[in-house]
Amino acid sequence: MSTQVQTLLAPRSVAIVGASANRQKLSNIVLRNIKDGGYSGRLYPVNPNDQTIEGLQSYSNYVHIPEIPDLAVVVVPAPIVATVLREIGQKGTRAVVIISAGFKEESREGALREMELQEIAREFDMSLLGPNCLGFVNTRRRLNATFGQKLLNKGEMHFLSQSGAIASSLFDWAEHHAIGFEDFITMGNKAGLTENDLLMYWYDQLLQKQAASVEKKFNESGYAPIGMYLESLSDGTSFIEIASEVAKHTPVFLLKPGRTPAAQKAMQSHTGSIAGDDAVLSQALKQAGVIRCDTIEEMFDFSMAFSWSRVPEGPNVAILSNAGGPAVVSSDAVVESGLTMATLSKNTKELLSTHLPRAASILNPVDVLGDALSDRYEKALRVLLEEEKVDSVVVILTPQVMTQIEETAKVIGRLAQRYNTPIFCSFMGAHNISKGEEVLSKYKIPFFRYPERAITILGKMWWWKQWQLHAGKKSTQIDVTPVPQSVITYHLEDIRKQLIAGNQYLSSEKINQLFDDWDIATPASTSVTSLDQAKRFAKQTGYPVVLKLSAPELLHKTEVSGVITDVRSAKQLEVASQTLINRKTELAVAVRKNTQIQIQAQVEGGVEVIVGVKRTSQFGMVLMFGAGGTLVELIQDRNLHVLPATATDIEKLVTGSKVYALLTGYRGKTELALPKLYHLIAQLANLVQTLPFFSEIEINPVIVTPLDAVAVDGKAILSEF
Amino acid sequence: MSTQVQTLLAPRSVAIVGASANRQKLSNIVLRNIKDGGYSGRLYPVNPNDQTIEGLQSYSNYVHIPEIPDLAVVVVPAPIVATVLREIGQKGTRAVVIISAGFKEESREGALREMELQEIAREFDMSLLGPNCLGFVNTRRRLNATFGQKLLNKGEMHFLSQSGAIASSLFDWAEHHAIGFEDFITMGNKAGLTENDLLMYWYDQLLQKQAASVEKKFNESGYAPIGMYLESLSDGTSFIEIASEVAKHTPVFLLKPGRTPAAQKAMQSHTGSIAGDDAVLSQALKQAGVIRCDTIEEMFDFSMAFSWSRVPEGPNVAILSNAGGPAVVSSDAVVESGLTMATLSKNTKELLSTHLPRAASILNPVDVLGDALSDRYEKALRVLLEEEKVDSVVVILTPQVMTQIEETAKVIGRLAQRYNTPIFCSFMGAHNISKGEEVLSKYKIPFFRYPERAITILGKMWWWKQWQLHAGKKSTQIDVTPVPQSVITYHLEDIRKQLIAGNQYLSSEKINQLFDDWDIATPASTSVTSLDQAKRFAKQTGYPVVLKLSAPELLHKTEVSGVITDVRSAKQLEVASQTLINRKTELAVAVRKNTQIQIQAQVEGGVEVIVGVKRTSQFGMVLMFGAGGTLVELIQDRNLHVLPATATDIEKLVTGSKVYALLTGYRGKTELALPKLYHLIAQLANLVQTLPFFSEIEINPVIVTPLDAVAVDGKAILSEF
Repeated sequence: MSTQVQTLLAPRSVAIVGASANRQKLSNIVLRNIKDGGYSGRLYPVNPNDQTIEGLQSYSNYVHIPEIPDLAVVVVPAPIVATVLREIGQKGTRAVVIISAGFKEESREGALREMELQEIAREFDMSLLGPNCLGFVNTRRRLNATFGQKLLNKGEMHFLSQSGAIASSLFDWAEHHAIGFEDFITMGNKAGLTENDLLMYWYDQLLQKQAASVEKKFNESGYAPIGMYLESLSDGTSFIEIASEVAKHTPVFLLKPGRTPAAQKAMQSHTGSIAGDDAVLSQALKQAGVIRCDTIEEMFDFSMAFSWSRVPEGPNVAILSNAGGPAVVSSDAVVESGLTMATLSKNTKELLSTHLPRAASILNPVDVLGDALSDRYEKALRVLLEEEKVDSVVVILTPQVMTQIEETAKVIGRLAQRYNTPIFCSFMGAHNISKGEEVLSKYKIPFFRYPERAITILGKMWWWKQWQLHAGKKSTQIDVTPVPQSVITYHLEDIRKQLIAGNQYLSSEKINQLFDDWDIATPASTSVTSLDQAKRFAKQTGYPVVLKLSAPELLHKTEVSGVITDVRSAKQLEVASQTLINRKTELAVAVRKNTQIQIQAQVEGGVEVIVGVKRTSQFGMVLMFGAGGTLVELIQDRNLHVLPATATDIEKLVTGSKVYALLTGYRGKTELALPKLYHLIAQLANLVQTLPFFSEIEINPVIVTPLDAVAVDGKAILSEF
Repeated sequence: MSTQVQTLLAPRSVAIVGASANRQKLSNIVLRNIKDGGYSGRLYPVNPNDQTIEGLQSYSNYVHIPEIPDLAVVVVPAPIVATVLREIGQKGTRAVVIISAGFKEESREGALREMELQEIAREFDMSLLGPNCLGFVNTRRRLNATFGQKLLNKGEMHFLSQSGAIASSLFDWAEHHAIGFEDFITMGNKAGLTENDLLMYWYDQLLQKQAASVEKKFNESGYAPIGMYLESLSDGTSFIEIASEVAKHTPVFLLKPGRTPAAQKAMQSHTGSIAGDDAVLSQALKQAGVIRCDTIEEMFDFSMAFSWSRVPEGPNVAILSNAGGPAVVSSDAVVESGLTMATLSKNTKELLSTHLPRAASILNPVDVLGDALSDRYEKALRVLLEEEKVDSVVVILTPQVMTQIEETAKVIGRLAQRYNTPIFCSFMGAHNISKGEEVLSKYKIPFFRYPERAITILGKMWWWKQWQLHAGKKSTQIDVTPVPQSVITYHLEDIRKQLIAGNQYLSSEKINQLFDDWDIATPASTSVTSLDQAKRFAKQTGYPVVLKLSAPELLHKTEVSGVITDVRSAKQLEVASQTLINRKTELAVAVRKNTQIQIQAQVEGGVEVIVGVKRTSQFGMVLMFGAGGTLVELIQDRNLHVLPATATDIEKLVTGSKVYALLTGYRGKTELALPKLYHLIAQLANLVQTLPFFSEIEINPVIVTPLDAVAVDGKAILSEF
């Protein structure tokens, strides 16, 4: 695939199908963009009406082009795209960009047309970008195959966008700030090529470049960053797999809307994308080391930051300012972005006090005072850059009466060239400071109109750096109790039978048997049909016991008051069983007929948690852990991990939860059996990976005691996938 | 005070003490700023060295000025400010701005100097602004008494800033965008005038203006907004009192850093301000209807929004865009800002579909498509402005190939003049869209480079509008059980005695007596000295009972395992009492000697909550409510209300908590006695307001059952205030 993408992005010849001589038409603009951008390959307009277009010989039909073009750019009305695409395929061109709109995004009819394109592309083994896209830019080849306005500056950044409009805005912004790109690809409806193909291509390129020169400095930043705007992921699991490899080498940042139902609805009418569970997406991105942007602004900011700046090597930030107020505000932002205010060494403080007036602050934030000229900024900044404990510096400038705005920017620029420590600037104001920003732009120092924005970006960069540092170390082996193949085979067969019989839910007995076989602890438990039987059980295991209604379809037992805990005597058992018999009669007929009464030894002195796994459409199986019992109503404690998981992952899943505070022996209480809980989670993960027939298993509650973690109540939903 | 502030801000004559002929000096810049700004009053430079300065006759001493100037602006070195101030006072001038630095912000010595200034100001009954400030601007009088660069544009907005630098940045930004101010005051160290004096002055002005013309249109927005940057509040209680009156008439927005310890530390070294509890501050501002800005950017954005735009009358937002991507992103932002995506009526959708091409989206967000010219924007926007269900419109423009940026801005501007619905714009990009922004600026339509920012601002505006709508209705009478004056007198006397005896804590007996007298339910309870006594108590009240160690100093009983619950029989009582006797011996000697064993009837079948009151330095008594018992460890559920409180306030305090989910009968459980809980809270509030000797009372837990809310364990800390 990567060589096909290569052909598409770096063709030796390009045909523009539907090229018009009318300069108002998109097709004409695309043609001129390619021609005027300085593309050195051969260019073939195709149009039935004109002999020459923009000084180039035009062809009335694709078949008449005197060679097989590497790339065809299609700008014809939607209803005839299929016909044209077939001609292109027959000629032998294998890379196609379809700019035309009027497909999935528009109507059902359009969706059918789009499926036809996919079939043709498959038939001729074509790489297809679009339809409904803005085209792409490859600055290396000076190829601007878009109807956007200008060729971008050369750079190392890659960008892909599922929105043409966001691309247009970013083009405009990037040009203004002289931010460069290697390529910029708009994806449109993703009928052919997806973000995964592009990511893979860039990853291959990255490895080649690395192989070619060990010490290649890609960029000012040392990176070839990848930015993305996506409304949908074509294949979440592959995306995560590829992105996490890429993210080990270079930063990947993504804006993906759809956190709220309102946006999901809007997305569906925009690109026909259906959103999955946003919390799962967030977790998957976190695991893959992909930075998720919260706003469009942040996406733009990262484009600048990763193009121009190294990543901080640690969390310690120094603030340098000619103004106390913004420095104070920035201190809040530093802490709230997961960073730390650097503690300056004695030596640094002494040096600062020799360079700065007495009223200046030599603590961090360093305040050079309102009358600071550029020399005072220079001295203080140099001292901070020399300080070992400073991993990044945020320089704030407010335009006061004597402030040397441009000169200060130059001073910062020159120092930035001599030190590796990232310097982020915030020159606050508008008119007066814009000349300073121009200088910063020249020196490629990231600048932000407000210091909080600079700090937010630094915070996320440091998050990525930490991920990168840990990404290589994910080797903790998970300790799973082996399950004999015969047992596995038995369960595989059994579940298949259930599916064939049309059963969607597993009975309590079957769940308990599975848990036993997978070394997941359960309390002693049995189904009873008479009070005597129940009494015998209770006598054997000892009181207290739990009595509950049980049926495969009865997924929320407590909601129908189907669970009676704390049954402490034979007499109480009698009352409880009568209560449940009465409640059973209140159930829906279909449920009632499968409902049994179950008796269980009560697990005492523990904390209730939930452990679950759920199949998601985008990322496969996802582990869930959180507070259980009545706490579920009270606290949002839904912690996720996309499988597979290492021992470290499972530990993090638990220690990162809110309920963890209750598990770890607070206020002098006994510590609970955390290793047993980790084991239970690992076993459940192993279970669903071994028997791939579950859409969901939820154990609620797992009771964690000082000695054990016990699966008290489980539900399991089957599905063929 | 207001007339003195009036004299200061609108003087008929101004003396510049320390005015220099050297154009590099601040004092000279101040003089020229006043002179060149077009101030029409008389101007007197005072300087011992020069005869004339900037063409004005200069006086060697303040006493030689031929009249008593209304205002003196002091720009002399810190050590001689006191001498100069005394001369000014002796002459008879009653309004002084001290620009000189070198006071509290610099050193202990400076702090002493500042105290001297305060004494002199008191002696001569002066209004004093500063020291360590940038001065002030009053555009009505064309008076720029700052060393900032230019006179601001005229407008209706008031601004005060405790940071000169933030003022400089805002000056620069406001000038660039032609945003006007009536006055702009920098506060410096606030040795004399505080934000409360200014707020009061503006409030008086507001009432006068309203009296003068009932239908006065202050601004494009209809408001005279007040913006503030403050690092400290001089008197929180007064601030809230005044601000909440002002906020009923005009928006008040505030940036106040200090959410984190890092910022608090930085603030202390910047202006010597000590921060209080930030959560209490946030709650106080919320009650007063003051909008708290999260970032500097937001403060700037509000300056524009409140100057130029009305406030939305409802939460329903329509998004109008030529691009799907940003519209999708905006839908997330709408929901996350507490707003709603407007549901368009059938009629509106039909109208849109007649005006827009078939591929356009006529749902909200409305997508006019990438090839939309200004006419398409115009038609769609008009339809949305006519729609009753739309309370505000966010117009997004991305610079695509045919986009008519300036023309579209004009179209929006013209429509804005004809409709009252707020229109916020986001033209995304940089170079290409800036001409469009200039047009928007001319029409005074708020614009933001990114749509999320526009929506955040709209969301907070709507929050304020809602506060305003409810502010007039705060009349729900609180139902308090009257306490006889004799009982009050008894407790006042008793607590005074305790304070005289040096007791900081109240004993359980005294607390229980207080609660009984204030109609706060407590369980039956007594101190016991023998097991027999305990058994008699238990027999009388019935098992289960609770046994606990009790001493005034023992504030965290559960942490020393000093509480044994669930004692269900005489035998268990014996064991429990022995356990507590043993634990008592482990306590510190000083605590042990006051420790008794207490027995209490156990309250069963309820949910544990905390109810407390605490005296804060800035806002007086604050109510606290949240989850109690073990939940405290697990969830952040600290809900505050600054006293006094109405019945509605108390209800909101409870219903806004996380633990509320457990109080209101979820999953078929019985609803708990909420009215009893409200009553308990109201009684506690009444208690601390009647007996003003407590720095803290905390009841933890209050157990809320289906029948009652019972104060199970209380602690009380006394203080003279």
